Amino acid sequence: MAAFQEAERQAVYRAIFERRDIRRFRTDRLDDEVLERLLLAAHHGPSVGFMQPWSFIVVRSPEVKSRVKDLFERERQAAACFYDEPRRSKYLSLKLEGISEAPVNLCVTCDPQRGGVVLGRNSQPETDVYSTCCAIQNLWLAARAEGVGVGWVSILKLPQLRDILGIPPHVIPVAYLCIGYPETFPEQPMLESEGWRRRLPLPDLVSYERWAPPPREAEPS
Amino acid sequence: MAAFQEAERQAVYRAIFERRDIRRFRTDRLDDEVLERLLLAAHHGPSVGFMQPWSFIVVRSPEVKSRVKDLFERERQAAACFYDEPRRSKYLSLKLEGISEAPVNLCVTCDPQRGGVVLGRNSQPETDVYSTCCAIQNLWLAARAEGVGVGWVSILKLPQLRDILGIPPHVIPVAYLCIGYPETFPEQPMLESEGWRRRLPLPDLVSYERWAPPPREAEPS
Repeated sequence: MAAFQEAERQAVYRAIFERRDIRRFRTDRLDDEVLERLLLAAHHGPSVGFMQPWSFIVVRSPEVKSRVKDLFERERQAAACFYDEPRRSKYLSLKLEGISEAPVNLCVTCDPQRGGVVLGRNSQPETDVYSTCCAIQNLWLAARAEGVGVGWVSILKLPQLRDILGIPPHVIPVAYLCIGYPETFPEQPMLESEGWRRRLPLPDLVSYERWAPPPREAEPS
Repeated sequence: MAAFQEAERQAVYRAIFERRDIRRFRTDRLDDEVLERLLLAAHHGPSVGFMQPWSFIVVRSPEVKSRVKDLFERERQAAACFYDEPRRSKYLSLKLEGISEAPVNLCVTCDPQRGGVVLGRNSQPETDVYSTCCAIQNLWLAARAEGVGVGWVSILKLPQLRDILGIPPHVIPVAYLCIGYPETFPEQPMLESEGWRRRLPLPDLVSYERWAPPPREAEPS
């Protein structure tokens, strides 16, 4: 396969640098063809032993979204208990998801049983979930290139999410995503522009030949 | 931020569809500037609560590579015990890594303690590792756009890898990657072209509103 031209290379970096976690959506419908392309991008993620452990649950039903949103709200309040003021109020003021507004919600699951004895999983069984995360990042970057926003909602208890979506106990709900056209792609991650946490300096995170602890300045603001 | 032009969109999909797990490398040096761009791409991965839990250990030393290669060889033989013939011989015939030949090896780690109480991790603490995997996929796609190959070696026992690289017990070695210029980017994943396992039909992996088991045909060949 041929080399990428300079403009192609730049486009890939652009998607990487301009990808954002989106929580504010326009209500425009997401066409089936666009969603299909995003799922195909995910399906071309790398997977250990070519296991392809992922499945995709497409949620458009307001009733299902509403149950997930309720689950999120309870968990959001519960998580607030672990912050002291003024961080607690700040946390509760943040817009963290767009479950109801996003035209599509997507649960990406991982089936650890798919594929029997999977090459490369003998030593690190958790690579099935790692593969699924790589697939999700494919989808996220493809979405950015389509002008589509994706937000990952991790403030959800998994047993209850399994119950809402009928996911069997052995299958792992890796991600619950909100997908749709965003009001905007912000210049910075929201938690950065809100002053919640800053981007760490990359050189602090790189070491050579051996692991090295990051300098204290690289630790949380 | 502006919309992507059609050519930019296509370039992102091209990187996604033409990314491969590379095990055969040319010995050309990987320039520091290229490696820096790949690490910067990884560092722009999404992370729960903007936690940025990743660190990067760059390995160029033949001595360190040699210790990792030895670890791989033992584990490769151990894993072979779990296959019956003829699959065992097939497994042992496959070229699964390029640890020694690749000019750079990169261990990507995840520090679950980084960032204190991380927003969004109260319900799903494993999202720190998920974030790290998304960062790795950024690096993998950026590499494809640079004409650089990446191979993920998961046939390694983690306690021994920690020992070789001096990684503390609480830090998770998520990926051990081989990075360099590939002999070629194959048209298909190697495990597909070798007949080890086929690509599953995407429609079998998609359900609506609720989880559904994939049809039996979607299960392993």
